[in-house]
Amino acid sequence: MTDKISLSQGGGGLDSKQLVDSIVKILENPVLNAQDDAGIVSVGSGKIAFTTDGFVVKPIFFPGGDIGKLAICGTINDLAVMAAKPVAISLSLIIEEGFSKDNLNKIINSIKKTAGEIPIVAGDTKVVEHGAVDGIFITTSGIGFQNDSCQPSGSNVMPGDVVIVTGSIGRHGACVMAAREELGFFSQIQSDVAPLWELLSPVFKAGGNEIHACRDITRGGLATILSEFASSSHIGFEISSTTIPIDPDVKGLCDALGLDPYNLACEGRALMSVSKKVSDEVLALLKSNELGKNATIIGLATDSHPGMSYIKTSIGGRTILEPPAGELLPRIC
Amino acid sequence: MTDKISLSQGGGGLDSKQLVDSIVKILENPVLNAQDDAGIVSVGSGKIAFTTDGFVVKPIFFPGGDIGKLAICGTINDLAVMAAKPVAISLSLIIEEGFSKDNLNKIINSIKKTAGEIPIVAGDTKVVEHGAVDGIFITTSGIGFQNDSCQPSGSNVMPGDVVIVTGSIGRHGACVMAAREELGFFSQIQSDVAPLWELLSPVFKAGGNEIHACRDITRGGLATILSEFASSSHIGFEISSTTIPIDPDVKGLCDALGLDPYNLACEGRALMSVSKKVSDEVLALLKSNELGKNATIIGLATDSHPGMSYIKTSIGGRTILEPPAGELLPRIC
Repeated sequence: MTDKISLSQGGGGLDSKQLVDSIVKILENPVLNAQDDAGIVSVGSGKIAFTTDGFVVKPIFFPGGDIGKLAICGTINDLAVMAAKPVAISLSLIIEEGFSKDNLNKIINSIKKTAGEIPIVAGDTKVVEHGAVDGIFITTSGIGFQNDSCQPSGSNVMPGDVVIVTGSIGRHGACVMAAREELGFFSQIQSDVAPLWELLSPVFKAGGNEIHACRDITRGGLATILSEFASSSHIGFEISSTTIPIDPDVKGLCDALGLDPYNLACEGRALMSVSKKVSDEVLALLKSNELGKNATIIGLATDSHPGMSYIKTSIGGRTILEPPAGELLPRIC
Repeated sequence: MTDKISLSQGGGGLDSKQLVDSIVKILENPVLNAQDDAGIVSVGSGKIAFTTDGFVVKPIFFPGGDIGKLAICGTINDLAVMAAKPVAISLSLIIEEGFSKDNLNKIINSIKKTAGEIPIVAGDTKVVEHGAVDGIFITTSGIGFQNDSCQPSGSNVMPGDVVIVTGSIGRHGACVMAAREELGFFSQIQSDVAPLWELLSPVFKAGGNEIHACRDITRGGLATILSEFASSSHIGFEISSTTIPIDPDVKGLCDALGLDPYNLACEGRALMSVSKKVSDEVLALLKSNELGKNATIIGLATDSHPGMSYIKTSIGGRTILEPPAGELLPRIC
């Protein structure tokens, strides 16, 4: 690592992991070391999940959402994938002097609408001089209650597990890229940004501890989440490329720009690793919700090549699925 | 309010309050409406305090601290003044491309040291392109457990209450201003930034529900906290200026620059409003701790002029103590 922070350390790939690992090493504690989506804190007989995320997306308004909706969904989803019912959110705003009051109101209204029943119970607002921040940055944190009967973790994947993705991948990354570059036809691509608690909650209830791991697919895309699971759980994956749902518009953008859809961020999709005995029920439950109607089984976990994921291509080949290394799309979220 | 956000809305004065009120109005819920330092969420038989703060201080290193120490103290103190024992902190970093890795390590080490026994259980790191953020911004959130026997609130001040400040005021504001302006002699002024749980915890234990209100004195200074208490509790205050502890170096800076020390931020002081029957015990407990050795009774709460604070001057006059209106010192924290 050089003596300066590089942009590639913010893309969500391997360079980002290096930076985060160096910070986690200093802050050293067992909860943070797990690097799950939320830290778990014991309180009396229950468990509280606690999560935080900073949002710096550009543009702040994009087809299907805005920085406010993105922030609230990000926080709800980090709790949801830990099987923790979101109960309260905090909101920290850093706003550039001269920022439009109308746009601020739009963002706050979007936050209120997206949070729905979950109250924003704490907030902070800073205004900084022109040029000290690019428009508005939002950090949301959230707490949720985790049930004893279901505690998924990235380090919990078992050999033989069935791997399920809850919907088509890469829409958010494709949407932000198209909106940023003003890519004509592709500028119509809508982000998949959505809160996932209502989708995932019945699955956790039905599947209990047979739901081994669950993570929302954000920066670094599907390839990164598979790599994280493989590394934390010391298992490997066998994925079939033909089963991975990718919408035609997203595929078109990827083909046109030479992007790998497996590296593109989603903001309303989760990857689950569940035991075989509940996989059919889980899939049916996901499909019964509009947000999960395209849920698909994309592969299996295996103990035969720990830490590595293989993907079968459409023409019958088999290659290693690697997470992206450096700069992907900074400011995607 | 104009159609653009102004810098004066970030200084901590009345303009800031206007902006925050407009946001709170949209997000409307009873917990946020209270505008205490932390929101209180019920969990089983207990209560969790939840708080968040964004830190944009400039310079990021100053005499007595740095942005990391400031962030952790700010979060610990927002919980501490609600009589909530801090149990977990989250850390969100937004870093400018090109930021010094050495400085980042210094800040993270400072965070670890200041947090002490309180674990950082969740984190997020974003890197943005050069010019999109001024160096580094940090948002910390925290959760704490509140005991049923003591639940101070800014809306809980009672007529006849004794008003206590835990130490000399204005050091942090004076320190940052002097460091920023390179004001020769005054550049030696050390910030008062410090975590307050160890100081306040014995007071809450001893005073219980007789500790009516407690708030850390940050942006907007003593005058702002008194105004917030007066407004939320529909009471007034009679304050004696000669009793308010102000250190000679801070007083010197204020005299030299024509600043009002009552408007200057602290980051390691609290203002308490407690019932008369426990005030002597509270004062003694505060004074027994190094951080509270200069704790002083500075006045009384009264029902004779709700919402207004009067201050007796050293020459026997009596004037209204008003909170600052607009731009004070942006990026003080």
